[in-house]
Amino acid sequence: MDLNSDLGEGFGAWKMGDDEAMLDIVTSANVACGFHAGDPSVMRRVCELAAGRGVAIGAHVGYHDLAGFGRRALDIAPDELADEVLYQIGALDAFARAAGSRVTYVKPHGALYNTAAVDVEQAAAIVDGLRRYDPALALLCLPDSEMQRQAEKAGVVTYAEAFADRAYTADGKLVSRKKPGAVLHDAELVAKRAVDMAAGGVVTADGTELELRPDSLCVHGDTPGAVELARRIRDGLAEAGVQLGAFTG
Amino acid sequence: MDLNSDLGEGFGAWKMGDDEAMLDIVTSANVACGFHAGDPSVMRRVCELAAGRGVAIGAHVGYHDLAGFGRRALDIAPDELADEVLYQIGALDAFARAAGSRVTYVKPHGALYNTAAVDVEQAAAIVDGLRRYDPALALLCLPDSEMQRQAEKAGVVTYAEAFADRAYTADGKLVSRKKPGAVLHDAELVAKRAVDMAAGGVVTADGTELELRPDSLCVHGDTPGAVELARRIRDGLAEAGVQLGAFTG
Amino acid sequence: MDLNSDLGEGFGAWKMGDDEAMLDIVTSANVACGFHAGDPSVMRRVCELAAGRGVAIGAHVGYHDLAGFGRRALDIAPDELADEVLYQIGALDAFARAAGSRVTYVKPHGALYNTAAVDVEQAAAIVDGLRRYDPALALLCLPDSEMQRQAEKAGVVTYAEAFADRAYTADGKLVSRKKPGAVLHDAELVAKRAVDMAAGGVVTADGTELELRPDSLCVHGDTPGAVELARRIRDGLAEAGVQLGAFTG
Amino acid sequence: MDLNSDLGEGFGAWKMGDDEAMLDIVTSANVACGFHAGDPSVMRRVCELAAGRGVAIGAHVGYHDLAGFGRRALDIAPDELADEVLYQIGALDAFARAAGSRVTYVKPHGALYNTAAVDVEQAAAIVDGLRRYDPALALLCLPDSEMQRQAEKAGVVTYAEAFADRAYTADGKLVSRKKPGAVLHDAELVAKRAVDMAAGGVVTADGTELELRPDSLCVHGDTPGAVELARRIRDGLAEAGVQLGAFTG
Repeated sequence: MDLNSDLGEGFGAWKMGDDEAMLDIVTSANVACGFHAGDPSVMRRVCELAAGRGVAIGAHVGYHDLAGFGRRALDIAPDELADEVLYQIGALDAFARAAGSRVTYVKPHGALYNTAAVDVEQAAAIVDGLRRYDPALALLCLPDSEMQRQAEKAGVVTYAEAFADRAYTADGKLVSRKKPGAVLHDAELVAKRAVDMAAGGVVTADGTELELRPDSLCVHGDTPGAVELARRIRDGLAEAGVQLGAFTG
Repeated sequence: MDLNSDLGEGFGAWKMGDDEAMLDIVTSANVACGFHAGDPSVMRRVCELAAGRGVAIGAHVGYHDLAGFGRRALDIAPDELADEVLYQIGALDAFARAAGSRVTYVKPHGALYNTAAVDVEQAAAIVDGLRRYDPALALLCLPDSEMQRQAEKAGVVTYAEAFADRAYTADGKLVSRKKPGAVLHDAELVAKRAVDMAAGGVVTADGTELELRPDSLCVHGDTPGAVELARRIRDGLAEAGVQLGAFTG
Repeated sequence: MDLNSDLGEGFGAWKMGDDEAMLDIVTSANVACGFHAGDPSVMRRVCELAAGRGVAIGAHVGYHDLAGFGRRALDIAPDELADEVLYQIGALDAFARAAGSRVTYVKPHGALYNTAAVDVEQAAAIVDGLRRYDPALALLCLPDSEMQRQAEKAGVVTYAEAFADRAYTADGKLVSRKKPGAVLHDAELVAKRAVDMAAGGVVTADGTELELRPDSLCVHGDTPGAVELARRIRDGLAEAGVQLGAFTG
Repeated sequence: MDLNSDLGEGFGAWKMGDDEAMLDIVTSANVACGFHAGDPSVMRRVCELAAGRGVAIGAHVGYHDLAGFGRRALDIAPDELADEVLYQIGALDAFARAAGSRVTYVKPHGALYNTAAVDVEQAAAIVDGLRRYDPALALLCLPDSEMQRQAEKAGVVTYAEAFADRAYTADGKLVSRKKPGAVLHDAELVAKRAVDMAAGGVVTADGTELELRPDSLCVHGDTPGAVELARRIRDGLAEAGVQLGAFTG
């Protein structure tokens, strides 16, 4: 089982999260590429830290919207989006390679992730940018999403992620953040759900059993409490005998 | 002899120069990387056009200052500058490779070019960024500049450029643009000087003979008249029997 | 009748349109405020030229998206949009006042204009930002749009614009740019339609007569041909005895 | 005596400092205007909080360099700088007025502050931008600086600030941050120096007595410890019987 987290989200004088602490926990780092967060020096440091720990490096590609942190849907033309994805992968891979590693996968960020889950054109554009860089790159994505379908159609390997701290509906979707109980805060419970997910299933918001076979669990690191929770998930998985390792490893 | 030009300087809805016309004239294209000009889709198009014509692709790295077009000196920390150079090369090379070519050299732009000609730290930072990407990349620069010295010190191959439309002082410097006669506009004369330079020398502003052995001549393309002048220079060189070809070819 | 045009759309080294020529033609200038186009020095120059000619100055507010020229829909939170509108009006009014004039109206740009025509929240946010600056400012907008309704609901005066070079449907909407014949290029015809619109009606795409009572006609200035066309419209209106003047005059 | 602090330095998803806590301490708020930090919604909130507490609002104008937080010297043309200053004041004043207050002074930020302390052209450009907005605005600046001289020459009122946590040389300059002992961290000592400064003098780094008659003391708020220190300074001044109030009050 892989643990992935969004890292390298500082920008200039502004910090976000504790990259170093998280890189001791996760097996895959989704590194911001300067479009929605991150800057060249942040990218260098995260790549160096990740390479030093054997953590896989993924391009966390996003809309070019620093002011909105990539969280606002942008109606960008697919060919421009594909070019922006290619640009971001190339820029990050320069740092990954300089650190003795390389970018092995791509994960869309924020509003791009949400849009590409359902929008055929944006999903295909991401896959197009990825393939033009290197068709051997993997795509880390939501299972049963448009992203996944477009990648598979194009012969790109996909890995599915799940969220131990999010409630699921009976048909395998995430409960909307706007609904109560969508995000779970009880560390005990979240760690338990991570183990359940690694074992192939999880209890949904309405109490049914949902089969789920994620390749990776996404953990968040942008608050001190989140680092603790991520560590708890990692420890819980280890105690349950789940072997941790990057999906691209 | 190589002819190089600054290309790919459009940005979003804004155009600049006639990239396609210039790519029929030059043998090396200094392509903006999105920091002082250019955007991912502009970069893709220029790389595709250059690759299709066998024109060498260089990373025209600049300060991250779109509003100032990279023409304003910025007191950036050397380690951050090195990271920004690495970022830009990586981003551009993604497009060069996707087009079946690759970035073979680096040329600093505008204020960065001027600063790195005399500033040890910024010159060394550019060379550091270049080497971390690929020590086999060449640096296109002003002869007898700090850039050239730092590159040679680091084992990076340099190529010297000259400007057929600029007046030179007796000690081989460019006459400041603030002085009258610094820029030559007579196409006949400029074309003749290009041939003289290819032959190893040029007449200076005060009438003396200056030895000059450029690897490349820089021509500008950001006005319709400039395209004409560039073509005239190319034709003049051809008529004089000077063989044209990329210095990195 | 008022003639309005989108001006001040240069940015740094990049030019767009011929502001000076257009300011001899129009009676109201929609001036970009640095978010989708324009920069402080461009804003100053356009305000000075407009003030010198008695041309009314309007804030052409847009999404904060230089790379997309404000032409890509952005799912921005309404309270943030209202703040961005307020920011842009304040910035532009500083230049208008320094030039001895002042901002008298607001017109949304590009994708914001299109979104606010149908989206209640974004329309209300624009009106909210406008009112917080000065409730006496007018809103220049599409007739029968959500923008117009939200403005009227809030007690903000609106002025309706029409497009002499665009085809209309029988129910008073613009024919989508994606359809053939949506944009008219025949100068004779466009000038005639401008006169018809000033007289209260225009022939639609399917040949019926549409009543239309615009306060302002929008003319474009971003190509040399467009300047000619704008002049033709102005001359045509003058010949037809239509008195020209800013709607806020 | 006035206490001023740099506030509103968050940007989008990124936080910096505790604006609300600092606004309970200071009497003047230097509010970032979106060029080196801050965004429209941050500006609105800080202006509302300041207005509600009777804290004076100043435009903290900076270079347009988010990535460098305005801390990198930029060789901008003076006329462009003047326009950028005018733009920033206008944008901030829109929020100040909407909150029932108004911008009453200007303070340059970071590298602009340092450059304008010694550079005649940039100092004059700041004063020019300020005067074009409103000649009654004050300039908060370093005493005996080029900024102060240019302002006085132009008839702009200046107020001098001092730094209780910085060591001074015998001739009244700040000890360079690169030297040991330049920044004082002992809260007791810093609070005592604030009281000394309010009384007209301070002990310099080499032990001599320096006369100093600041109108305002600058306190920092970008770390939790800084908020504590600021509160300590305020309390120390109150205990010593120094009356606090905005210099523009």
